[in-house]
Order: sequence, then structure tokens, then C-alpha cells
Amino acid sequence: MILKGGVVRESLDVRSKDYIMSRPAFFVDKYIAILLLSDDVASRAYVNLKQKKGIELGIRVDIVEKPNENDVKNVLDMIDEFNNDSNCLWIIVQLPLNESLTPHLATILAKIDVKKDIDGLWGALLGYSQIGYVNFLPATPRAVVEILKHYKIDTIWKKITIVGQSNLVGKPLAMELMKQGATIFSFNIYSDQDVMKKCCRRSDIIISATGKLKMINKDYLHSQWGQTLIDVGWWKINGKASGDMDFNDVKDDVFAITPVPGGVWPVTVSCIFANLIDMIEMFG
Amino acid sequence: MILKGGVVRESLDVRSKDYIMSRPAFFVDKYIAILLLSDDVASRAYVNLKQKKGIELGIRVDIVEKPNENDVKNVLDMIDEFNNDSNCLWIIVQLPLNESLTPHLATILAKIDVKKDIDGLWGALLGYSQIGYVNFLPATPRAVVEILKHYKIDTIWKKITIVGQSNLVGKPLAMELMKQGATIFSFNIYSDQDVMKKCCRRSDIIISATGKLKMINKDYLHSQWGQTLIDVGWWKINGKASGDMDFNDVKDDVFAITPVPGGVWPVTVSCIFANLIDMIEMFG
Repeated sequence: MILKGGVVRESLDVRSKDYIMSRPAFFVDKYIAILLLSDDVASRAYVNLKQKKGIELGIRVDIVEKPNENDVKNVLDMIDEFNNDSNCLWIIVQLPLNESLTPHLATILAKIDVKKDIDGLWGALLGYSQIGYVNFLPATPRAVVEILKHYKIDTIWKKITIVGQSNLVGKPLAMELMKQGATIFSFNIYSDQDVMKKCCRRSDIIISATGKLKMINKDYLHSQWGQTLIDVGWWKINGKASGDMDFNDVKDDVFAITPVPGGVWPVTVSCIFANLIDMIEMFG
Repeated sequence: MILKGGVVRESLDVRSKDYIMSRPAFFVDKYIAILLLSDDVASRAYVNLKQKKGIELGIRVDIVEKPNENDVKNVLDMIDEFNNDSNCLWIIVQLPLNESLTPHLATILAKIDVKKDIDGLWGALLGYSQIGYVNFLPATPRAVVEILKHYKIDTIWKKITIVGQSNLVGKPLAMELMKQGATIFSFNIYSDQDVMKKCCRRSDIIISATGKLKMINKDYLHSQWGQTLIDVGWWKINGKASGDMDFNDVKDDVFAITPVPGGVWPVTVSCIFANLIDMIEMFG
């Protein structure tokens, strides 16, 4: 089975749009602020995608660029303004920052009001979720979970390998799946490849967000057992996108797999808005 | 090697005491408030231990019991008072709560000012630490890490099995050891025992906080490879304490092991005060 992201995205978007349209008085002056503080081309493309999705769903998204983006104080003042503006629902600081701001990353993210930190970058929401007070997952790990849910692939009590331990994907995904009662094998780039292979072969679900092109191949799979593979990787080689998994090598040996392109990534932007709706419901 | 907790406790206490004595003007009116809201005998004993340790280290610890402990509003008001009292450094709500308060657990813990939440129960500190902004570990997982550090048992890039996924021990320990670059195998009570055994055999370090008496025996170990075992379990059978590991069965086959009693638990209370010192240094 090919786990296409498009249908998952659509069902998330329908839910978000219905919610926004059902509360016109609340949303009329509300907006999301995205701070774009670098010249990174991929960041600009991603920010534009977020803005387009916002318009599609009926919520204003302001992309804020400042000529004096190198001035930390100025950036902090901007965030403060958004914190204090009750019409600003969420503040997104698009990462990576430019070079001169990077040393101030913690200070900048810390400035964002916890309840406006849609990306959960500042950690408090992750902690609340770890304890179980709220359910919150940043957009990318949520996209993984939404795909599994949509295609009715059970995670409870399953064995799940997660390759990658980043703050944005690997760590929150491990926490979330532990909450669901899964046994977790968590690997990083320094992990013993032989052990990783053995654990992958034993896993019901393999999730890769490691950033090694086509690393997961047939060698990592159980020969009979129908496994599910979720590929969070994204590479563009000679104009062609591919992921952490060698799709053509493994596709006939698995129960289900997300393609690249068209798997996890199309779902992530929709998850930002799904998070927005959930947080409004939680925090009012 | 037997990893005795006593020396680790002593070195942590010396550091805490030196710090407190070096800042007499700061600490003179400061105190820690412990809310004891149940009749649980073990809780009372543990709270008394904390108070005794505080006195030993030079900081006042107030145990607060209220006759109307069943009144949620009263409990929340008390917490508010401590939040607003600048002399109150930390607020500890001793768990478990009594039965009538248990449904209000989240509300009660949420009331504690993040910067006074020494136990990290409310999650925000865990999230901050997950992101890497602060280093924070609740007392019990910190005790595990302090023992490993004291005995110079390296965790970087190691394979580590953690049996147990609780909010207080298993989850924060997994996050912390991921930050240190370890490969993590995380199990819960529903996990496949056969896979757990295989992962244990492959691990450099096995940490058990699962609450199954003497579950880890020779079957779980590699026959030649010197492994380190950390036992967070605590059981009292016929007046004799023992842990999650079958100490006598495994002790000759491992590189190092914490005994029960005398291993992890004596270090935990000292870790509360070590956390106190670190948080004062971080947040002022």
C-alpha cells in the first residue's frame, strides 16, 4: 500500500476550514505572524506555502521581514508586539536564522509567548505534552502520526524504530509514541548500523528522519513480515526528489510505505493549521 | 564493580552545602515548601527525608499540611501564596495526592510557577530541557545520570536499554540520554519480552524502572561483554529490600551494578537540592 499524503492533507484541511468558517466573528481580525529572518531560498518557499495554505483555509498569514534583521533587540521587540497583540494567534520564527542571529536562537525563541508558539520550538508545549496535560506535536511528527491514523495503522503496543533524534522530529515522535504504549528503538547517526538493521527487521513500523539518502533498503527489512515504512527524508538529486528510503528496492516487500515526493511533506503545512485549531480549542 | 550511591550523594551534598554557605545573605529567609496532601505513610517518610536533608544543607524546608486538604480551591490558593512569596524558592507537591484531590492533579500541578517546579512535574522544564535551553532532569533520572558520571561510565554513543516509560523516570531519562547521543531501546510492560532480552544483551547499559521484582536476570545479559546495570526498582519483601534486577544472579557477570538498597535511591533526595542550586544559577 502506498501511503499518499494528499488525502490526509485534504481531510485535515477540511476540518480546519470548517472550524474557521464556523467562527467568523472570532477569526475576522486574527492572523499568524511568520518572521523570516534569513535569505535562505528553501525557507522563503516554505513560508510562502504556509501563507498560501492560510489564505486557502481563511486565515491571514503575515510574513514579516525587517531590513534590520541583524539587530537582535529589534527582533525581540517585534516578537513582543505580536505577543501583546490579541489578534495575533501564533508566531512562527522560520528556521534557520541568518548567521548573525543564530547565536541568539534561544533568546529569540524564549521570547515567544508559550501559547503562541505553534511550532513548539520553545519546548514548554513539548513538556506539557510529555506529561500528558495537552496533546501537542510539532507539524512534522504530527504529519507522521496523522498518516498512520488515516490509514488505520495501529501504533499501540507496537515495536517502532525511529532513525533520527532531532528536536523537531525524532525526540517528540519518540515521546508521542511512548505515550501510545509503543516500544521504541531510537537511533542517531552514530548508532551501530548492525544493531539498527536488527531492530528495523524486528519493527512493525520504521520511521526515518535521519537525512541519509536511500539508507533504508531491503537489508533492513523482515523478509515475510508486512512492515510499515514512513519516510520523513527529503532529497533532490538531479531535479528528482527522493527520501531516506530506497523506495524501489523496498516497495514490494512492505505492507505500506510513504512515497517521496507525495508522502509526509505535503501533510506538514496542514498540520500547522490543525495544531492552530487544536490550541484554540485548548487554550481558548 | 558495585556502584554505591553513598559516595555520589556525599559529593552532591558537599557541592550544595558549599553553594548555600557561600551565599548566606541570599538564603537567610529562603525556604522550600512541600505540600503533603495525603495520608500515605511512604509519602510522609519521604517528605521527612527531604526536610532533614534541607536542614543538613542549610536551607529551610516547610512541610505544609492543611486540615481542609480536600478543598481544591484551598490548595490552589496555598500554591498561589507560595508563587507570590519571593522567599519561597521551590514548591513540591508530594505525590500521590489523596483520592479526592487526584482528579484535580493537572489543575494543581499547573498552578505551580514553572520556575518553582523543582520536580519538573508540570512539564515545562522537561520541554525546555528537551530542546536544550536548560539542563534539567527530575531527581530520580538525575540520580541515575549522576551515578554513571561519578563512576566514569560513559553514555555518549552507547546503546542503552531503558525498561519503563513513566513521566517521572523512563521518558525524561530517554530524552536526556538521546541528548548525550545514545542509542535508546525503550520498553514498557506490554513490550515483547523476547525482543527486550535481545536488546538488553546488545546494550552497554541497562536501566530498569519498571517495577517488576527481579525481572532482569542472567538471561538478559551478554555472556562476555561487561555491561552496566542501573536498578531504579524498589521492593520490600519480608522486610528485605530488593529491586528490578536479580542482583545475586547477575552480579558476577556484569561490569558494574547498583545495589538495592544503597544504589539509586539514596542519591535522589540529594538530586532535589542539586537541582535547586542549578536552577538558582540558571534563573537567578
